[in-house]
Amino acid sequence: MKAAVLNEFGSVEKFEILDIPTPKPGVDEVLVKVMATSVNPLDFQVRRGDYKNELQLPVVTGHDVSGVIVEIGTGVKNFKVGDEVYYTPEIFNGNGSYAEYHVAKESIIGIKPKNVSHLEAATFPLAAGTAWEMLYTRSQLKINQTILIHGGAGGVGIPTIQLAKAMGATVYTTARSVHHQFLKELGADYTIDYEKENYIDAILELTNGKGVDVVIDTIGGTTLSDSGKVLNQMGQVVTLVDIEIPQNLIHAWGKNSTYHFVFTRQNRNKLDELTKLIESGKLKPVLSKVFPLAEIGKAHSLLEFRDSDPDFYGKIGVQIGN
Amino acid sequence: MKAAVLNEFGSVEKFEILDIPTPKPGVDEVLVKVMATSVNPLDFQVRRGDYKNELQLPVVTGHDVSGVIVEIGTGVKNFKVGDEVYYTPEIFNGNGSYAEYHVAKESIIGIKPKNVSHLEAATFPLAAGTAWEMLYTRSQLKINQTILIHGGAGGVGIPTIQLAKAMGATVYTTARSVHHQFLKELGADYTIDYEKENYIDAILELTNGKGVDVVIDTIGGTTLSDSGKVLNQMGQVVTLVDIEIPQNLIHAWGKNSTYHFVFTRQNRNKLDELTKLIESGKLKPVLSKVFPLAEIGKAHSLLEFRDSDPDFYGKIGVQIGN
Repeated sequence: MKAAVLNEFGSVEKFEILDIPTPKPGVDEVLVKVMATSVNPLDFQVRRGDYKNELQLPVVTGHDVSGVIVEIGTGVKNFKVGDEVYYTPEIFNGNGSYAEYHVAKESIIGIKPKNVSHLEAATFPLAAGTAWEMLYTRSQLKINQTILIHGGAGGVGIPTIQLAKAMGATVYTTARSVHHQFLKELGADYTIDYEKENYIDAILELTNGKGVDVVIDTIGGTTLSDSGKVLNQMGQVVTLVDIEIPQNLIHAWGKNSTYHFVFTRQNRNKLDELTKLIESGKLKPVLSKVFPLAEIGKAHSLLEFRDSDPDFYGKIGVQIGN
Repeated sequence: MKAAVLNEFGSVEKFEILDIPTPKPGVDEVLVKVMATSVNPLDFQVRRGDYKNELQLPVVTGHDVSGVIVEIGTGVKNFKVGDEVYYTPEIFNGNGSYAEYHVAKESIIGIKPKNVSHLEAATFPLAAGTAWEMLYTRSQLKINQTILIHGGAGGVGIPTIQLAKAMGATVYTTARSVHHQFLKELGADYTIDYEKENYIDAILELTNGKGVDVVIDTIGGTTLSDSGKVLNQMGQVVTLVDIEIPQNLIHAWGKNSTYHFVFTRQNRNKLDELTKLIESGKLKPVLSKVFPLAEIGKAHSLLEFRDSDPDFYGKIGVQIGN
């Protein structure tokens, strides 16, 4: 099968489209013909070597699959050949989605929503799965609560806004002005242009000094230390961006706040919940551009340097099977 | 009435036992004859000026009351003259417990447990109330979970060990060897002498490399950044000690951990729950020494410099009324 292989970590030129052996499904595993994948920040972080201690070369990266089961291993109980499925491959095992076929444990795959294409389905597993973990599993966002979602126009921001809205929260989000109209259509109640105003002042003004119940940090930087300033009493911060720089958390105690550190985990239950939301129209795919697997490097560059393209938002899809 | 007044922040010599007007209960308030109080780290932190921006001088500090209601204000519904009550005064309002009488809102007081003396009852409100917030309200400790309680022999450590044990958890605690026998009698399953062994190695060995589900930080220092190393996946840290030094949290993400920052809050419900635990014998007072109000400075010094007395553990009581 064809796969985008990394024999060393580094720039996008390190990707080589090679023929490698098609894997075989083992016990409790299925073989999936990959129809589509999508690109996440985790993908270019792996490619450039941020996780080189967790991985052995050569590596196939890629963290979203939408495809069709073509073979099942012994012991598989919940799936059959021909089932259309979507999921996030196990992270850091070197067996990613940038390939024509992929083997996965049945415990981490879910039935693909019927109302979207494979390219659209592939936008969801990692990004919307992370949104589900942040809002449902970890912060347990409640109806009528207020939430600030940093980076609303990003891959994780988009499903997080939709999910927060579907859960009944009031949604504040930061994004460039060019995306405000789109984010309001998606469900944001208030949009803040972080390039034109101080978001801390804006949130305190919009909430009459009370602050928000939940902050979603998809961007890193000083968000962790600044979050204490925009939180309500008993407020929560959920952060995705692991940073080694020490964080000043002095405001966290006075607010009786809780900080959740999230590194995504795979399970079928989460995908089944997302499927219900996608099929009911509460969660819509936002696919901004599609590349073939041969141009995976271009897809990476577009996401990695997205700040240089002010109009960019949403997810980048990669077509693999036909 | 007599009260220990601070006209300026600083050393224990700043306490002056003065005659000041006995306060009057307002709407929804009660006047309590204070029979006993106890000493907490928050008390000496307030005295030395750690919270000088939150307080106006002169100040009466003190964060535990056990006493008798001698007068009720209009609108009080749940208490009557003669009721024996215990509670933590509202923090940072300058009206603390180091006085012969104290006025409190009825919403923050609870009926004193019948099976303990006033001196014993006064050991509970702030310290055991904090234990309740950490284990019940915030981390929601579950039966069969594992918990590491730093500083087990301290004022907060002692009720936290007892509560964790009563909730069905396996309890690991750090303390000097001299206190290990006492802490085991209190309910600790494993005791670690932090002066003689590296507690991180000890916990990983005791849990077969898995780590603990909950870490209770009552000591500060490097506990926040080190906790990521001793946590199980989805583990939680609860921290009481506000520190301005930036914290390296890089291990927190990989563990999918949650950090709760706690600054105690007052409410009657919490005290009612503690009363049940005290009356059923699940929570026992540990009163190590008693001083009269005139020697409040000595009581502060004993707690503030407790590290210089290796035998010291438990709570220090202060007798006020008779």
